[in-house]
Amino acid sequence: MNDLPADLVARLDALLGARFSRAEAVRAHHGGGGMHLPALPPQAVAAVQSLSEIVETVRACAAHATPIIPFGAGTSLECHVGAARGGVSIDVSAMKNVLRLSSEDQDCTVEAGLTRVALNEYLRHSGLFFPVDPGADASLGGMAATRASGTTTLRYGGMRENVLGLTVVTPDGRVIRTASRARKSAAGYDLTRLFIGSEGTLGVIADLTLRLHPIPEAMSAAVCTFASPAGAVSTVIEAVQCGLPLARAEYLDALTMRAVNRAFATHHAEADTLFLEFHGSADDVAHYAERARMIADTHGGGAFRWASDTEARNDLWAARHRAGLAALSLRPGARPWSTDVCVPISALASCVEAAKHEIGALGFPAVVLGHVGDGNFHVVLLIDAAAPDEVSAAKRFNDALVARAIAAGGTCTGEHGIGLGKRAALRAELGEAVDLMADIKAALDPQGIMNPDKIFAVAET
Amino acid sequence: MNDLPADLVARLDALLGARFSRAEAVRAHHGGGGMHLPALPPQAVAAVQSLSEIVETVRACAAHATPIIPFGAGTSLECHVGAARGGVSIDVSAMKNVLRLSSEDQDCTVEAGLTRVALNEYLRHSGLFFPVDPGADASLGGMAATRASGTTTLRYGGMRENVLGLTVVTPDGRVIRTASRARKSAAGYDLTRLFIGSEGTLGVIADLTLRLHPIPEAMSAAVCTFASPAGAVSTVIEAVQCGLPLARAEYLDALTMRAVNRAFATHHAEADTLFLEFHGSADDVAHYAERARMIADTHGGGAFRWASDTEARNDLWAARHRAGLAALSLRPGARPWSTDVCVPISALASCVEAAKHEIGALGFPAVVLGHVGDGNFHVVLLIDAAAPDEVSAAKRFNDALVARAIAAGGTCTGEHGIGLGKRAALRAELGEAVDLMADIKAALDPQGIMNPDKIFAVAET
Repeated sequence: MNDLPADLVARLDALLGARFSRAEAVRAHHGGGGMHLPALPPQAVAAVQSLSEIVETVRACAAHATPIIPFGAGTSLECHVGAARGGVSIDVSAMKNVLRLSSEDQDCTVEAGLTRVALNEYLRHSGLFFPVDPGADASLGGMAATRASGTTTLRYGGMRENVLGLTVVTPDGRVIRTASRARKSAAGYDLTRLFIGSEGTLGVIADLTLRLHPIPEAMSAAVCTFASPAGAVSTVIEAVQCGLPLARAEYLDALTMRAVNRAFATHHAEADTLFLEFHGSADDVAHYAERARMIADTHGGGAFRWASDTEARNDLWAARHRAGLAALSLRPGARPWSTDVCVPISALASCVEAAKHEIGALGFPAVVLGHVGDGNFHVVLLIDAAAPDEVSAAKRFNDALVARAIAAGGTCTGEHGIGLGKRAALRAELGEAVDLMADIKAALDPQGIMNPDKIFAVAET
Repeated sequence: MNDLPADLVARLDALLGARFSRAEAVRAHHGGGGMHLPALPPQAVAAVQSLSEIVETVRACAAHATPIIPFGAGTSLECHVGAARGGVSIDVSAMKNVLRLSSEDQDCTVEAGLTRVALNEYLRHSGLFFPVDPGADASLGGMAATRASGTTTLRYGGMRENVLGLTVVTPDGRVIRTASRARKSAAGYDLTRLFIGSEGTLGVIADLTLRLHPIPEAMSAAVCTFASPAGAVSTVIEAVQCGLPLARAEYLDALTMRAVNRAFATHHAEADTLFLEFHGSADDVAHYAERARMIADTHGGGAFRWASDTEARNDLWAARHRAGLAALSLRPGARPWSTDVCVPISALASCVEAAKHEIGALGFPAVVLGHVGDGNFHVVLLIDAAAPDEVSAAKRFNDALVARAIAAGGTCTGEHGIGLGKRAALRAELGEAVDLMADIKAALDPQGIMNPDKIFAVAET
């Protein structure tokens, strides 16, 4: 890879001073990787603090056809922030102001570097919250870029449903607003949804206007065990079919529960488990909970353990959110490879069971957990990265998992995205539709400088 | 305009026989218009019956660079189906098969010509329904193309939220699937949402995979009058802020109510009125209704009149759906011009009141009604199309309505779309973002044959 042009370095030095860095430690922090993909550090990092600094940085890079990689919190899972073709990482993590909050309209505008936890902390006394919860404390810009969703999607939707509009810097440095603040619009192409999930390949998200939701009067979470994944999944299917408004419906397999117990010294039963949550008025929540219990009963569910006060609920969800990391306790020193697929819910039990069957033959541990109300589940494979046979077995497992999901009418990724890791899977899933995506990429980024090689290899565009 | 090439005519004659027509009566039926815009009949109509006939017709037209205008039920309001540059109308109204229905997954795949009423008729015994309700019995393909929404958007979302994927024929005759059947996906650009609202300018929608919803155990509608638009709007704002799950929240002004009474021999009070609806369990609905009544009380609402059985509810909503037509009874022989805007709900009362103030000075009647829970409202102007001063006054009124909506952070159209009528308004609202849309149009339709002049004038692309 060639060095960055001296002229570009001088221009960004002048613009950003010490916030433009080519130091190895800084670059290493921005290279992604860490899971199944190697880190790909950028050649430099531009730690911008404003929209105008994004614009100037993009214009400088565009003038030299130098790649640009937007960077938020670096929590993505398919090496989205890796500099596959070198270039400059534009780190927006210092841009974390809340620019506007309207209680009456239940919306706000925030800079792209603000994280979801920080936003909810800011909103604490407003009676409102931002529901999208992918687990990690990701930046909101990154969550939009990867079309994040997570545990509350069933009730509140993911980023697709909760972003009203974006301010985006185009690859040639123009600033556009994708939409007004109206709750709905029929005004032209849906640029908001085009940028949501574009993984930094079409422009840099500078700020987001987000839908907020009233904090429910009551929230209640429950844990229930089952004798099989099918019992847990059938419970959720039936609850959804009855129109029961589940706020969260998470499945964790027996091995995940063992890992959670080990990592957090909890005493959950080590069995196929559902974590459920209901939001509403106190009456609503009690009513929903009773109906859920009755449905679980018919599918072999054990007793419900309830957690209604905030602390008990937070403990429960902290365990859920850290389950992937907890899995590491099953094999200290292993590298976790977290993959996800999403299938029509009718195919969920069979896909989960097929995955669990194959895990049994892998020779290393892997846990299954997921947002089963949406048909979305994760497998975290715990591999010895130094053992080529384990890496290739994990790769075969992932390929088979994806192939089964696609054959069942599902998608190769429900929420992790394509990045570098699932480009072939995207093509297998959508075929020629990927050519339309590449046409759009070429039209909006003719130099191919925005996060190159992500979603599609450079040769495809 | 030149005649259609003889070779194209021969090719489509051979393909479709009598279903390819250049008869004046058939063409006249496909020209749109009728509201404030003149009809623009196509040069011929291809009444296709299958995906492969769409493909062959598109390929034939593409070979001659002949414009293609997709046509469903012809109920759109901004002359979306008019042949602004001549060409062939591809009428999919005979394609109305339900291709697949899954109760377990609560989804179905339907051909683009099926109407929403016909789909719900088909679903009648399934326990499921398709909620999106723009009023007119539009085709589902057309509803996707115009990003339709309507009375139930508040609770269920519009087409944007209720389409899982589309089969689209591209302008060069390729068949693509935009997405899998998974409830959510992070696999590449959101082509589904790009085609939803593209108004036929990017391809022909052949079929749609739709989310369905369980028919609620109980539904209850209510009518309540207010002394001002502000009282009605404030009631809805407060209900939304409290997290009350309104299924429908419709505002009709006093003149609309007078028109409804005249047209349907009903005896509603002729005042600012809210039509509300709640869905849920019988207990939920009773509980929501009581809370809504208490909120309305604090905003000067009169007594609630309830309609809980199906027949009474249907009568109520039939009156709402036909209110726009009923308005004609206020001025027999007038031409109705129906426009819509959507604003943040905090600006709704002032925008409605400003519109009503200006209506007072117009010299001809106009009614105001809308989906106030979303901030979306309609004005139906009843003009004498032969009086140029009325036409220009109506145009000035519409321009001012749109300008106020944009100034308030809203959009020039919440659900009617851009078509031919609101191209300048789109530019006023989104500025340079429209250039990105035009770039996408040029990339996916390089010959510019798909419904040319809609959304942007040909010169913009």
